[in-house]
Amino acid sequence: MEFPSKLIENAVGELAKLPGIGRKTALRLTLHLLKAETEATSALAEALAKMRFEITYCQTCHNISDTEECSICANKLRDHSMVCVVSDIRDVIAIENTGQYQGVYHVLGGVISPIEGIGPSDLHIDTLLTRIPESEIKEIILAISPTMEGDTTAFFLSRKLREFPDVHISTIARGIPMGGELEYADEITLGRSIVERTRQAKA
Amino acid sequence: MEFPSKLIENAVGELAKLPGIGRKTALRLTLHLLKAETEATSALAEALAKMRFEITYCQTCHNISDTEECSICANKLRDHSMVCVVSDIRDVIAIENTGQYQGVYHVLGGVISPIEGIGPSDLHIDTLLTRIPESEIKEIILAISPTMEGDTTAFFLSRKLREFPDVHISTIARGIPMGGELEYADEITLGRSIVERTRQAKA
Ligand SMILES: [Zn+2]
Ligand SMILES: [Zn+2]
Repeated sequence: MEFPSKLIENAVGELAKLPGIGRKTALRLTLHLLKAETEATSALAEALAKMRFEITYCQTCHNISDTEECSICANKLRDHSMVCVVSDIRDVIAIENTGQYQGVYHVLGGVISPIEGIGPSDLHIDTLLTRIPESEIKEIILAISPTMEGDTTAFFLSRKLREFPDVHISTIARGIPMGGELEYADEITLGRSIVERTRQAKA
Repeated sequence: MEFPSKLIENAVGELAKLPGIGRKTALRLTLHLLKAETEATSALAEALAKMRFEITYCQTCHNISDTEECSICANKLRDHSMVCVVSDIRDVIAIENTGQYQGVYHVLGGVISPIEGIGPSDLHIDTLLTRIPESEIKEIILAISPTMEGDTTAFFLSRKLREFPDVHISTIARGIPMGGELEYADEITLGRSIVERTRQAKA
């Protein structure tokens, strides 16, 4: 595709780097912005830059947060003895939207994936292990998508968590289709799978 | 959907204003940017802002251009006696990509749409009419999508162009499905429809 302007070409090129956005879609978005008020583009550009450069993470759970401690960790009404371990911030948002969970979270920041070169040390596993005795955690719910990488990660964590025999380990209940991504589950299925989580037998 | 951060919420909100992008997709794009290098986001934000604020249009044909005269109008090898009238810059790009057309263009900037409140005076029709005698134009090809609004626009133009009895008026050949958008046509169909354009009978 040839463009009559380098400015358009750059905008299309940058948009097309986003996942799931091809060059035709990128051109459509660019021309949409071109037709709309200039304010629409500056609001978008500023929101993206501000998000990327000013974002901070909760020092306790690694959730995204505008403050040092996220609103979930800071909430005294929540059950801080119960930690739901997820791979991604998306999963926190998805579980929060079910309204079924009153504990706190721990965001790993990914899953173990040898193909992508992501090992256990690339994930927030150490901080989970130090958090358990410090915060008197009684239950850990492994809410990791049942994909191959997710299962590997859950297995790795289960073994690590044997260090803490008093902590109950559970996994979210079956109900999420095998190989399915957590975030695509509907709220009812996801909510129920947390309530009916299966406690893992001590190996 | 509730977000753990206002920065994320704003970014998702702005992305979700784009056509065809829902909040789930917007969140996915936001989290993608968050995981990627900061440079990816600044490059995107800058490309969009630069595109929107620095873009200029060709003073002759209203095509997008980084200079006063676009590269098509400035090209002496092209046939300046033949003008292809399109509604949109997208259409210029689509026709250029066929490699079948050697004339120049005139971009209307839309189509007549009473529902959207777009009348003939909102389009670049006057500049087309003054351009015809000035540039010794011999043929005008109406390459407007055969939608209801497109047909209305083509009909309006045909009547206006009766002022110039020596100018041949043609429309792009059938081949584009009725009701179809020009830009979605494959390059072969679109290229052939220009080569085999039907000359309009003088009413
Ligand atoms: Zn937190
Ligand atoms: Zn031009």
